[in-house]
Amino acid sequence: MTERTRIGRLAERGVTDMEQIRAILNEGVVCHVGFSVDGQPYVMPMAYGHEGGQLYLHGSVMSRLAKSLAEGIPVCVTVTLVDGLVLARSAFHHSMNYRCAVVLGRARELTTQEDKMKALRCITNHVVPNRWAEVRPPNAEEIAATTVLALPLDELSAKVRKGPPKDDAADMGLRVWAGVIPLRTVMGEPVADGDAASYFVMPAFLKSPDLK
Amino acid sequence: MTERTRIGRLAERGVTDMEQIRAILNEGVVCHVGFSVDGQPYVMPMAYGHEGGQLYLHGSVMSRLAKSLAEGIPVCVTVTLVDGLVLARSAFHHSMNYRCAVVLGRARELTTQEDKMKALRCITNHVVPNRWAEVRPPNAEEIAATTVLALPLDELSAKVRKGPPKDDAADMGLRVWAGVIPLRTVMGEPVADGDAASYFVMPAFLKSPDLK
Repeated sequence: MTERTRIGRLAERGVTDMEQIRAILNEGVVCHVGFSVDGQPYVMPMAYGHEGGQLYLHGSVMSRLAKSLAEGIPVCVTVTLVDGLVLARSAFHHSMNYRCAVVLGRARELTTQEDKMKALRCITNHVVPNRWAEVRPPNAEEIAATTVLALPLDELSAKVRKGPPKDDAADMGLRVWAGVIPLRTVMGEPVADGDAASYFVMPAFLKSPDLK
Repeated sequence: MTERTRIGRLAERGVTDMEQIRAILNEGVVCHVGFSVDGQPYVMPMAYGHEGGQLYLHGSVMSRLAKSLAEGIPVCVTVTLVDGLVLARSAFHHSMNYRCAVVLGRARELTTQEDKMKALRCITNHVVPNRWAEVRPPNAEEIAATTVLALPLDELSAKVRKGPPKDDAADMGLRVWAGVIPLRTVMGEPVADGDAASYFVMPAFLKSPDLK
């Protein structure tokens, strides 16, 4: 934790336990990547993966996003899980239950084929566990066409809100429904492409979905 | 659309139709707000609402985030809906189906009680339709304790991917499952706080949930 990642307000929501932060990174499907170009911040959703103290991102070598990040500019990667809507008796105390991890730093472009492959495998398997072993791996051309970035998990923090609304004592008698509406991400019925459904082996992941 | 919001790569995914962009803003629960302080970008999840060409954000007057934004620094607000995982026959063509709206600009702090109330109502009703009418509205003290920001919906764009994986012709014979795994956000069973369940009227919203 640094001065930049210190939780300012509502410090009781701050999480510094690395296991909890890792659990948030494990559960997220996309991250939101923030960076500035010519003084204008941009926030873009990206797939990601993490292992060995590194968070991996990738993009086409042609994309402005990947080009900008590869220059080693300061970046912020945020993973947010929205767990519920918190409905209080007063408008003021409405809130959300969430878990949010934030990583600050500078991304480094991976250059060797071996490093890039390892990172791409990590990203693929983060989104769909064990998927890498089931598909055709990238060839040299595809790897060359992909910018792969590593951001060290050095400067990071998390913020978590959970539990019921916190209404003022004076509002407890109001005839208003209050409580939490849980939200979660679920998978729908897989839609096979072309002949895939009839001929081929379902991914291990889909046989026992453990994503959500 | 400006040079800054022009979709660079995969321009076929670009969306400039205001109705489609509004639909993304309508459906999102949280946005991710990007801004820079001392050259370091930060990305934070926030509740939001929009109406009349303005996107509204709010935070405690004590929060660093609200203080920074209220200075009128450049900001990026991104709303992302992840619709599905796209599993291709090759690692390279894996993707996600998503809808993402991006708003660039500078936020303006609302100062009159009337403007702040209107924006807070908009944010509350965005998250839970018609909730504002059911709860105790904010009093003067609560409004004073809240920074409310308006970002004009002037400079914005969206990017959408949908449909099946796009594999290379040479990979179509591989014995690999391919297709789309739909993802969506659903509400769980509401958890009432204290006596709320037994005594009080359920919010209209929960009687016919239309959030997702």
